[in-house]
Amino acid sequence: MQKQVAVLGAGSWGTALSKVLYENGCSVNLWSRNQSQVDEINHCHSNKNYLPDSVLPDGLKATSNLKAAVETAQVIVFVVPTKAIRNLAHQIAEFITEPKLIVHASKGLEQLTHKRISTILEEEIPIKKRTAIVALSGPSHAEEVMANDLTTITAASEDEESAKTVQGLFINDYFRVYTNKDILGVEIGAALKNIIAVGAGAISGMGFGDNAKAALVTRGLAEITRLGVAMGADPLTFMGLSGVGDLIVTCTSPHSRNWRAGHLLGEGQEIDTILTEMGMVVEGISTTKAAFELSQEYNIDMPITDAIYKVVYEDAEVKYVILGLMQREGKSE
Amino acid sequence: MQKQVAVLGAGSWGTALSKVLYENGCSVNLWSRNQSQVDEINHCHSNKNYLPDSVLPDGLKATSNLKAAVETAQVIVFVVPTKAIRNLAHQIAEFITEPKLIVHASKGLEQLTHKRISTILEEEIPIKKRTAIVALSGPSHAEEVMANDLTTITAASEDEESAKTVQGLFINDYFRVYTNKDILGVEIGAALKNIIAVGAGAISGMGFGDNAKAALVTRGLAEITRLGVAMGADPLTFMGLSGVGDLIVTCTSPHSRNWRAGHLLGEGQEIDTILTEMGMVVEGISTTKAAFELSQEYNIDMPITDAIYKVVYEDAEVKYVILGLMQREGKSE
Repeated sequence: MQKQVAVLGAGSWGTALSKVLYENGCSVNLWSRNQSQVDEINHCHSNKNYLPDSVLPDGLKATSNLKAAVETAQVIVFVVPTKAIRNLAHQIAEFITEPKLIVHASKGLEQLTHKRISTILEEEIPIKKRTAIVALSGPSHAEEVMANDLTTITAASEDEESAKTVQGLFINDYFRVYTNKDILGVEIGAALKNIIAVGAGAISGMGFGDNAKAALVTRGLAEITRLGVAMGADPLTFMGLSGVGDLIVTCTSPHSRNWRAGHLLGEGQEIDTILTEMGMVVEGISTTKAAFELSQEYNIDMPITDAIYKVVYEDAEVKYVILGLMQREGKSE
Repeated sequence: MQKQVAVLGAGSWGTALSKVLYENGCSVNLWSRNQSQVDEINHCHSNKNYLPDSVLPDGLKATSNLKAAVETAQVIVFVVPTKAIRNLAHQIAEFITEPKLIVHASKGLEQLTHKRISTILEEEIPIKKRTAIVALSGPSHAEEVMANDLTTITAASEDEESAKTVQGLFINDYFRVYTNKDILGVEIGAALKNIIAVGAGAISGMGFGDNAKAALVTRGLAEITRLGVAMGADPLTFMGLSGVGDLIVTCTSPHSRNWRAGHLLGEGQEIDTILTEMGMVVEGISTTKAAFELSQEYNIDMPITDAIYKVVYEDAEVKYVILGLMQREGKSE
């Protein structure tokens, strides 16, 4: 039987996931609150603001009617920025009359509460209205998925059967899905890699090369793992696709907007100017604040997060902070 | 007191390490068996075959006289291809009259014996002629070190004091050295990352993008770690500079000759043609054979090593093997 799937959020990643689901034979409702974007997807089969070079499948349908998108769906996929998750989950909970499989592919932590996205979804969608929550994460630039380029990703859930259901929905020749039970580790890796990407961009913007970047990414993986393990994650998760895999792609690829924001910071631009000019959500910047506060709460040494926090929220000089980070006294690894 | 250091091997990395030592105030003898290269270094302060864009310090002296280079040195640094290590160590042992600190910065495993480089050095340099053996490894393109670009590296030895001595010799503002006791893990990571770099190059040569590369590198780290741990390494070493750090820089940077060899393989060129045209040692190709045999000896699943082995040594079709590797049935991570 054809699965009905609602994809909430028509940014680049929501659009790419919709395309995968559509090509896999699902009936997809791609929801956006922006009517002109909905019209563009339905009539021009494009989404130029987010994926300027991609053509969408003719049959991929978008809608701005949230209730219509959600009520017939068996599966609901959240792909909106972290700060929009709680409100949207609260809204759709009203439209749900029978239990749905809830998936999310967003990467961040809630401001103030520091909560993971699956926790927000649990809080806002009553348990009777959902079968399980699954997080989808891994090294995956949307542009490459649109081009049918080979991509490998993790579907994580405490409920193994639901992770397998999501795997079955998304998997095809070019989109390879692996399951993982450690949703906490997957979500922490997904959120925190964006901070390290800002740092890697800053290193590059300051004129440093690949040796320095590799050192920063290595230490970034270590500090993400330290915090994740303190919060209860399996350390092995951080060596997997949603850990080191996503870290590599985000820190070394020109597609990453977190890297680009960091690059501009490294060149000496002001964070407010950067965010205004980019005009898209840069999750790494807001996640930095949540991660900085978590590192204090759990008493974990996170020097890169600390450095980016100082630059973004305390107006510290980027050159001074990053050089201080990289030139700390030689010691054992 | 000024340290006397012999650096054996004037390839790009030996030259870069000599430059660091020279700038740190050591008296350096850079040895090469090639007299015209020695003359070029001494008179033109360049090493065009290996570092076409770099100027060497005026005072950096090269020699083709192995005995002269070694006998006055307190520290001997091996930076020759893996296959040349045993002979060279055997040769210099004759010239040694009092114990020397032995360092190596080569990355590979011996053909047939599968031995690590420190093991070869132990076998060829009698224990009375050495104080300790230290391996130097990490994400470090020579070109960037020549440009004083920030670089971070590991000095590994079972003898902590000697690792600290090497750290003290090399460390400066742009060359940051960390110590590590797990020399086995550091050497295994150093050798095997070159195989994964060949794979990453092949992926790229076949036209795949960053998502696929990140997936391959992630799995590469996992298979290196599996073998290393089976051989007795600390799993944490593979999350460090000589593990994931070196893997990132080798797999994502255009400077890497292992990556370039893989790229040409991915484009469908024959391995013999590639090696002839490159005219430099490509450690990843010979290490593949040793690692493949080790994986069988230890009964460890190493699908990437296996795939590269099939392409290089069994004439398997690169497209078929790599696609088979990337499209294995979806399962848990």
